Amino acid sequence: MNYPEFLRTAMVAAHREAGKGHVADYIPALAGAVPDAFGMALATVDGELHGVGNWKEPFSIQSISKLFSLALVLAEGGNALWTRVGREPSGTPFNSLVQLEAERGIPRNPFINAGAVVVTDRLQTLTGDASRSVLGFLRAESGNPGISIDPAVAASEAAHGHRNAALAHFIASHGNLDNTVAVVLEEYFAHCSISASCGDLALAGRFLASHGVRADGTRMLSSTEAKRVNAVLLTCGTYDAAGEFAYRVGLPAKSGVGGGVLAILPGRAALCAWSPALDRAGNSVGAVAAIEAFTTATGLSIF
Amino acid sequence: MNYPEFLRTAMVAAHREAGKGHVADYIPALAGAVPDAFGMALATVDGELHGVGNWKEPFSIQSISKLFSLALVLAEGGNALWTRVGREPSGTPFNSLVQLEAERGIPRNPFINAGAVVVTDRLQTLTGDASRSVLGFLRAESGNPGISIDPAVAASEAAHGHRNAALAHFIASHGNLDNTVAVVLEEYFAHCSISASCGDLALAGRFLASHGVRADGTRMLSSTEAKRVNAVLLTCGTYDAAGEFAYRVGLPAKSGVGGGVLAILPGRAALCAWSPALDRAGNSVGAVAAIEAFTTATGLSIF
Amino acid sequence: MNYPEFLRTAMVAAHREAGKGHVADYIPALAGAVPDAFGMALATVDGELHGVGNWKEPFSIQSISKLFSLALVLAEGGNALWTRVGREPSGTPFNSLVQLEAERGIPRNPFINAGAVVVTDRLQTLTGDASRSVLGFLRAESGNPGISIDPAVAASEAAHGHRNAALAHFIASHGNLDNTVAVVLEEYFAHCSISASCGDLALAGRFLASHGVRADGTRMLSSTEAKRVNAVLLTCGTYDAAGEFAYRVGLPAKSGVGGGVLAILPGRAALCAWSPALDRAGNSVGAVAAIEAFTTATGLSIF
Amino acid sequence: MNYPEFLRTAMVAAHREAGKGHVADYIPALAGAVPDAFGMALATVDGELHGVGNWKEPFSIQSISKLFSLALVLAEGGNALWTRVGREPSGTPFNSLVQLEAERGIPRNPFINAGAVVVTDRLQTLTGDASRSVLGFLRAESGNPGISIDPAVAASEAAHGHRNAALAHFIASHGNLDNTVAVVLEEYFAHCSISASCGDLALAGRFLASHGVRADGTRMLSSTEAKRVNAVLLTCGTYDAAGEFAYRVGLPAKSGVGGGVLAILPGRAALCAWSPALDRAGNSVGAVAAIEAFTTATGLSIF
Repeated sequence: MNYPEFLRTAMVAAHREAGKGHVADYIPALAGAVPDAFGMALATVDGELHGVGNWKEPFSIQSISKLFSLALVLAEGGNALWTRVGREPSGTPFNSLVQLEAERGIPRNPFINAGAVVVTDRLQTLTGDASRSVLGFLRAESGNPGISIDPAVAASEAAHGHRNAALAHFIASHGNLDNTVAVVLEEYFAHCSISASCGDLALAGRFLASHGVRADGTRMLSSTEAKRVNAVLLTCGTYDAAGEFAYRVGLPAKSGVGGGVLAILPGRAALCAWSPALDRAGNSVGAVAAIEAFTTATGLSIF
Repeated sequence: MNYPEFLRTAMVAAHREAGKGHVADYIPALAGAVPDAFGMALATVDGELHGVGNWKEPFSIQSISKLFSLALVLAEGGNALWTRVGREPSGTPFNSLVQLEAERGIPRNPFINAGAVVVTDRLQTLTGDASRSVLGFLRAESGNPGISIDPAVAASEAAHGHRNAALAHFIASHGNLDNTVAVVLEEYFAHCSISASCGDLALAGRFLASHGVRADGTRMLSSTEAKRVNAVLLTCGTYDAAGEFAYRVGLPAKSGVGGGVLAILPGRAALCAWSPALDRAGNSVGAVAAIEAFTTATGLSIF
Repeated sequence: MNYPEFLRTAMVAAHREAGKGHVADYIPALAGAVPDAFGMALATVDGELHGVGNWKEPFSIQSISKLFSLALVLAEGGNALWTRVGREPSGTPFNSLVQLEAERGIPRNPFINAGAVVVTDRLQTLTGDASRSVLGFLRAESGNPGISIDPAVAASEAAHGHRNAALAHFIASHGNLDNTVAVVLEEYFAHCSISASCGDLALAGRFLASHGVRADGTRMLSSTEAKRVNAVLLTCGTYDAAGEFAYRVGLPAKSGVGGGVLAILPGRAALCAWSPALDRAGNSVGAVAAIEAFTTATGLSIF
Repeated sequence: MNYPEFLRTAMVAAHREAGKGHVADYIPALAGAVPDAFGMALATVDGELHGVGNWKEPFSIQSISKLFSLALVLAEGGNALWTRVGREPSGTPFNSLVQLEAERGIPRNPFINAGAVVVTDRLQTLTGDASRSVLGFLRAESGNPGISIDPAVAASEAAHGHRNAALAHFIASHGNLDNTVAVVLEEYFAHCSISASCGDLALAGRFLASHGVRADGTRMLSSTEAKRVNAVLLTCGTYDAAGEFAYRVGLPAKSGVGGGVLAILPGRAALCAWSPALDRAGNSVGAVAAIEAFTTATGLSIF
């Protein structure tokens, strides 16, 4: 396939749409992003790497880190996690607290904030340093030792983190945290505050396209586990717009409020697009438009 | 692929699991089914048809009809439907009324009962006879003119249909029905009461595997539309266990409380399994086990 | 007490406030009311009757009828009702369907629509003609044989009654109706469509001020039962604004979307005010202002 | 009235019922209470004080402190509080988080935990020491300088306070706290951990029976404000069983999970009963039975 050409087509679509969104402003550290900045990169299972736009520029990965923390927990600790967090779509944008209450502190899936808090707790128990293990994985897969946690973003998250603190305390009240709320929140804010580029993330997500095999050829997840993570990404990876994303794009993907979207083409490649302006569900307008244009142009989709 | 062997493997798995479920008993007409009856059929895009067990025995297709009514509406009326029904997973088992109320009479997706009522209303407006058009489609695709609506099941549905009547009146109170509640419910109960076999349904679902092309070679849906229906099936097709089904099986599918599950292998085949005993989410224990065993054995999955 | 003077004070307050509301327009038959029309009447346990404004003009009593149907059921059938309907405040304006679903078809209290449907069903079973028995009670207590059911309002309610039909079918789906949905709805719409004046309603509500004794001296409810109906009125009688009404006014009361409010001064009198313009909770702006001014001026309150 | 005799009648009822409940065990410091311990005291507006059983034995007042913190805030700061907390019943037992989310951090009323957290925050701002001001008020009204905060209970509350921490952080996330979460929780746990006897609490609650006038003859609240606090107590004072309590007992009251219930007879007396075993809604079985028996025997009720 002529990936570079398809990436350029995607970039045109992104530039056309990005103006319709709004940059996340719940923390000052994100509010300064240039709304229509754009980058996109694709890393194939064969080792190709292609990019367009600002594909080498680091941005705040935010919730995309939830994908890596989940994969690390499954790799280290196996299926034990699934007694503590579900894998069903959450349904509505504002109901994480509602569902947590109705479902006794078991978060609906690992990609809503409540679920990622439980995953972080588990990763902390397994590794002793949850955020460092996410960071280490990203550096290893991308070959970029410059990837780092942005301390200003982490501090800003903590300072404006009352809602996540509420979730964590509520989960703790149901006995579903092993570490203290303070430790879990610190680790959670830390791995959400990693800065990485589209190129870095495409490389780091490639193990899900290659059925669980890492860049160095070692197996991280079994083929079945890798498929299953992709399934959870498809049904739960883009907040409460997962149905819409599957409908329009048709790929497993994880989005973050920093404007990044990392999508998987199983057996083929990982694809990361970035543009800071978000839609109402918190997904990047430009990045989603770019990935949709890419799948339309290439005909690639899991459906 | 040696499909017959894989189907036999699947049947073994189904027989092992089916005893764990319970036959639907909300209407007398369904309660008499043999819990561990089993059949399975696969229809490839190339025209092969394989079956095991009681794959030629008709059963009540129930909610599987929602897939066909949706496809017919999209084929006849295009995208206009999507202003009246969403395409997001509904989240929890008992919340259709809750969500309908919060979301002002716009059902969350076309596969929950409320959504299927709206789809039926639209199909009635487009064709003048919603249940007949579903029936006609099934007969044409399967080549089996003996497929019919079971009047005893339809009468039983109507007699025990207070909850669906509540949904329909509530939707009507929001102005989201064009036909009368009585007509829509009659048509809805009728197409849910169609009896067809695994072989019939595999043939009838094959257009979604062949990117929208019917048995006679004519195009029913564009390739993009067919992919999108598959996406909605994956995120919403198995009630509130869609996340779990995607995780375990990894195929777009629609289940019914008659015990049938129709799954799509895009580009390859449609697969229908049937076993009456259900799990708590209303999906057939044996049919799901069979399809999971089939995908594990073949390695086929969209992820 | 100089009741006439206090009533005039109340009328001044009502005229000052009534312009802030909006007449109910969900059915055409109510939408034509003059927004700032006003009447008020007080009937003491000693037999005095006082009125100001248009206190002899009939209006649509709407939900005020729920008070009478409840009292008749308790008088005829005793406490058996309370296994089928609760007596807790419902909490939020839009959640009757939500609560019905969560609480398996047992309405939260007899004054929300769902609860009044169950009360009507019970009254129908006890009397064979629920709306006639409410009508007969009002005529007897007021001595006014001209009180009647407005057929235009009843027809309009039925024509726009999809939401109440949804509630009734949902209750029926939980086995909590003895009569058919059609019969219950007809009786429910009929007794809500009674036209009566402030004077009529003050006389008809007086039994709750006189500890259960009717106009003719016979006992309808025991003293304890009468107190308990007053308690339910206080906590549930003014929709989801019951807390606010208790805070501002401090009397048991039932309101209707026709603009009437019937309040009880236990041991002393019944008080009915009417003004068609409603606030967002569905309570009459002018009538509530009048009753509040009356209690402030007289110092009468149960607290 | 022969109050001593009526109190003895009440005690008999309490002893008959108390065995049906269960002592609160969510914190170790409460779990050790003797389930059927019982005391009851009545303080009239004329200065009489009567008691039966262990009416001089201190117990943990728990949520009864919410009544005093509310009154102090209204006395010090007037109506400004009501923009930050509502006064409607909350509806269901487990929905405080649900409602907080739906209603953007404005608690439904001052007597659910979320509302009391906001009241405590306001009292802290007004007085600089919220728990001390509650303690000082209780000591002054009862004339008992021995009333104190139980540090073991306060520590136990804090150690098991994840759910209250969740509420406080969630409220803070909506900007509805002026002080830090840590300070507000500390003060909240402290005033809930006050130990006082039935006699102390009857005397301390008497200002609500005497229309706002304190033991020393000074006015704390206007007559209207005192009535309004009583109204909020009636509709919201006994958790989600407020409707049931009004129905059975018919008095404004505040309960606590330490087993105490403080009820108001407006214009006449304050009444406090205590027995540790609780019903499912968290109200003392024995104390409620005692107060119900007292109102039945005396005929006293606000209805």
